[in-house]
Amino acid sequence: MAEIFDLIIIGAGPAGISAAIYGARKALKALLLTKNFENQLFNSAKVENYPGFPEISGQELTQKLLSHLQKFGVEIKNQEVVKQIIKLIEDHFKIICESGNEYQARSIIIATGAKPKALKVPGFNKFLGKGISFCETCDGPLFKNKEVAVIGGGNAGLEAAEELANYTRKVYVLEIMDEIRGDKLLLKNLENKDNVEFLTSAEIKEIKGQEFLEEILYFDKKENKEKTIKIAGAFIKIGYTPNSKPFKNFLKLSEKEEIIIDPLTCETSQKGVFSAGDVTNISQKQFVISAGEGAKAALSAYNYLQGRLKK
Amino acid sequence: MAEIFDLIIIGAGPAGISAAIYGARKALKALLLTKNFENQLFNSAKVENYPGFPEISGQELTQKLLSHLQKFGVEIKNQEVVKQIIKLIEDHFKIICESGNEYQARSIIIATGAKPKALKVPGFNKFLGKGISFCETCDGPLFKNKEVAVIGGGNAGLEAAEELANYTRKVYVLEIMDEIRGDKLLLKNLENKDNVEFLTSAEIKEIKGQEFLEEILYFDKKENKEKTIKIAGAFIKIGYTPNSKPFKNFLKLSEKEEIIIDPLTCETSQKGVFSAGDVTNISQKQFVISAGEGAKAALSAYNYLQGRLKK
Repeated sequence: MAEIFDLIIIGAGPAGISAAIYGARKALKALLLTKNFENQLFNSAKVENYPGFPEISGQELTQKLLSHLQKFGVEIKNQEVVKQIIKLIEDHFKIICESGNEYQARSIIIATGAKPKALKVPGFNKFLGKGISFCETCDGPLFKNKEVAVIGGGNAGLEAAEELANYTRKVYVLEIMDEIRGDKLLLKNLENKDNVEFLTSAEIKEIKGQEFLEEILYFDKKENKEKTIKIAGAFIKIGYTPNSKPFKNFLKLSEKEEIIIDPLTCETSQKGVFSAGDVTNISQKQFVISAGEGAKAALSAYNYLQGRLKK
Repeated sequence: MAEIFDLIIIGAGPAGISAAIYGARKALKALLLTKNFENQLFNSAKVENYPGFPEISGQELTQKLLSHLQKFGVEIKNQEVVKQIIKLIEDHFKIICESGNEYQARSIIIATGAKPKALKVPGFNKFLGKGISFCETCDGPLFKNKEVAVIGGGNAGLEAAEELANYTRKVYVLEIMDEIRGDKLLLKNLENKDNVEFLTSAEIKEIKGQEFLEEILYFDKKENKEKTIKIAGAFIKIGYTPNSKPFKNFLKLSEKEEIIIDPLTCETSQKGVFSAGDVTNISQKQFVISAGEGAKAALSAYNYLQGRLKK
């Protein structure tokens, strides 16, 4: 008969690792399933907003989280991508992985995160973490008094531009459509700033540089010609994809395909299944918030397993 | 004319410090008001559940948070206890301190925490942090295979006992009333454990030891005599008092006097005023959760100040 875990945690970003630490502290028989440890955090050149670490690389912080986890002896299965969850009976789930491996648990925490949408142009992968970032809150201050670009003129892009305009020399906002799509109020605020320039109908063609990002080549669809801007940093704000696909027939998702949770307890639409961090419909996607959510989900799972889940 | 801050944060525990770090990252003109830095965390002998720090003292971690804060140059006023908040006009508040000092802000985050209720008996202060703890999740594992006591037979006490019984040799649960007050289900689970003993009608008289806690002297009201138990640790679970008193006429509080927030945004009943951490009605009181909540409150305050607060 298959081994039955008290709790299986899927995903090893800040939410998943925090959940595993808390599960271990509660002496639950827990298993962490993850593809690898190269989450969004891992790709951040410099993290300055996780309280307690004034400055640390994403890679180093990931390593610290892992050491913490290992100290508590949580079982980890690496290289596992979850394909499907099946509810066998009340309080008993089966997790089926792409590998064919199966695991059974009395409760589950899904912390699979979200993937920022990448630009599919030459140079993108080369300069990711070397000038290209997905997160202005994480990496913006690295570009103080420099010129930067924001790719994407939706709300996320405008918000990034607004923030960056406070301390960078110049912010270009590049949008592929012929007009900026974000909120008018947000746009109006930005139009009042001297150091923000909008480039619409701009289709990115290539990202160039030596060791670090230096320029962006784009095609101006209005003027029908290629142009170049010189910048030190580029923030990609063309959306996120929550990693919720394997769960879409199992759990209630939002329009954005986020797993809908009760924000007080991290409960999903399926009793015994919890979710935490960027894969959920919480409004802010930040390292420390996800870590908090992971802890909350684990404590809720613990209460659930004890036969009580108090709000 | 008085200086007007974008954001004033009240309280310098994990939630307040995290909020201040995020406020600074958003380039807000922020001020942190605090009585001192000796929060609940500060009194924890060993913290093992803040992801990234496998083992650190509460004092050391507080110091790390402060260094982090100082790096961003947030203005701090120490020795300030807030007496009252007044809304002058829309988007403009006045904070009045016990000292008589007044501060003005466009938005506020209240992160004043909660105070676990102390036992008013000789020896309590002496052994706090030297055997006496308020938090089994934080300090419980220090007492693996040892004998411990839980003071308080309500739900919090029973939950602590349940957790401690998993790895300590023996758990005494002392309750002053003549019966255990917590949930029956919880009680039933505990009664099935060999290593849990209930002592009701037990009025604690004194806490004794040399350098560390060694025994508890209590008066057995049924047998009308003094008794002693020898233990290495005692967990005080006689309730919490949210530090919400100065805000009770200003904000909507729960029955437990917690500040009621929207858990997605940390908004209180007063527009422009946010709250985070143990002073609020969130269900779990944990360091990393409070730090996450503080970040969330600061990002919400930032969005509010920009004229938009999206859920």
